[in-house]
Amino acid sequence: MTNIINGKALSAGILAGLKEEIAKNRIISKLAVVLVGDDPASITYVGSKEKRAKEIGLLSEAVILKKDSTKAELLGVVDRLNRDTSVNGILVQLPLPKGLIEYEIISSIEPKKDVDGLHPYNMGRLFLGQEPLFYPCTPAGIMEMLRSIKIDLKGKRAVIVGRSNIVGKPIAMMLMREHCTITICHSRTNDLPEITRKADILVAAIGKPEFIKADMVKPGAVVIDVGMNRIEKGLVGDVDFENVKYVAGHISPVPGGVGLMTVAMLMRNCVRAAGR
Amino acid sequence: MTNIINGKALSAGILAGLKEEIAKNRIISKLAVVLVGDDPASITYVGSKEKRAKEIGLLSEAVILKKDSTKAELLGVVDRLNRDTSVNGILVQLPLPKGLIEYEIISSIEPKKDVDGLHPYNMGRLFLGQEPLFYPCTPAGIMEMLRSIKIDLKGKRAVIVGRSNIVGKPIAMMLMREHCTITICHSRTNDLPEITRKADILVAAIGKPEFIKADMVKPGAVVIDVGMNRIEKGLVGDVDFENVKYVAGHISPVPGGVGLMTVAMLMRNCVRAAGR
Repeated sequence: MTNIINGKALSAGILAGLKEEIAKNRIISKLAVVLVGDDPASITYVGSKEKRAKEIGLLSEAVILKKDSTKAELLGVVDRLNRDTSVNGILVQLPLPKGLIEYEIISSIEPKKDVDGLHPYNMGRLFLGQEPLFYPCTPAGIMEMLRSIKIDLKGKRAVIVGRSNIVGKPIAMMLMREHCTITICHSRTNDLPEITRKADILVAAIGKPEFIKADMVKPGAVVIDVGMNRIEKGLVGDVDFENVKYVAGHISPVPGGVGLMTVAMLMRNCVRAAGR
Repeated sequence: MTNIINGKALSAGILAGLKEEIAKNRIISKLAVVLVGDDPASITYVGSKEKRAKEIGLLSEAVILKKDSTKAELLGVVDRLNRDTSVNGILVQLPLPKGLIEYEIISSIEPKKDVDGLHPYNMGRLFLGQEPLFYPCTPAGIMEMLRSIKIDLKGKRAVIVGRSNIVGKPIAMMLMREHCTITICHSRTNDLPEITRKADILVAAIGKPEFIKADMVKPGAVVIDVGMNRIEKGLVGDVDFENVKYVAGHISPVPGGVGLMTVAMLMRNCVRAAGR
């Protein structure tokens, strides 16, 4: 029988722990979320981050900029937040509207306020096997999910489908640090099913609705679905959950999976940012 | 019939081109090599780097420190070289004696003088898919070798054995940027031969003499040997060359392979450093 990795319960437990920690230690930490434009999905994400922060006792501030904001305007906002000592964490909601280069904006955030863990300083440390100030939230959430099912990662074959800076590359490095053998696949990969079928741990982060089918999964594998695709029937992941759940040993659902863990990890980073 | 990738001819061609460029454009660039201790292999490497620099018309300066030098002493030397405007490139010969943490020392080099390409700034950019100021020399040399045999890398399966910061991780990222599907194996990998046998491109960087045997190689594969192991019969790589050469489509020898390319790439980085 497949075990569903319950991101809802797992993230709720983490958030409850953080709430207690904040109350007990009288932690004051403020998250600033910068949103450029009016993308509906981004507005939803920003809203849920602010809501979660408030629930556990963190302060938050949303800075909303027009879609056609210039690089200079956005850098100006980040600079102000960098210098504002009342702000502990800064997050620029991605993706940015066309014309703004994410790398340039993210690089301008103070690494010690980079609660998204995406600054080149933190990413560079991760790549080189050094402890970053903050881990990127989605990969950190995946690692928590894997810890929750208590599997021994040493020597396991991990296949990551998707090579993004936000998920694919950092989760590969984090799994390798736990001594997994890692393979990163992407749009140019040939014979993808042959590769995914070898995976003890399969991470799907490609942004293609229900792309990973049951015959692409090794029986008993742990399947982590990072996808968030809005299609006619609703929100679905990158994994064909209804069929893959009969093959996998453990599987994370969408919704109720990685997305909730990502927000929980962001909150954890915000709490940790308070001390810096 | 197997094709031997001639690192000697290839590196000689690159060095000749650099020599011409230096003379024609009257480039003045000085490489400072810092050596701590008296490890015989390191002394040889430093010597060959200085020799090569001189041959093509670069200036060089070797700074030799005692084996028991402190972190403060070494950081002091790097600081002086960072501030010395006559020095264009700084290289700290690795490995460092026990007690000195490589990451701390490498991090102290000015990124724009980091001709070894190992500074977290340059490595972080590489990881995130941005152009670094300098590419690390051994992976850059491997990419030149692959270019020389004119294979189309798109969609090819590349297996890297070894997960070091100097070779394994950066060559994986560079191959992925060329749209290879990458797998990184290491000491904890299970069923290594099964994985290496799938490789269209196999990079061996583990430091175990003649570890990769003929039955671990896919017929026709490109095999790149990064190993440099001194054993009784002489210098050998990580690949059992005498037997693998009958299976591989292309193979790089040791000596006469990656080692020479590494030095050539260092020289290229030194020439490029002149403009910065």
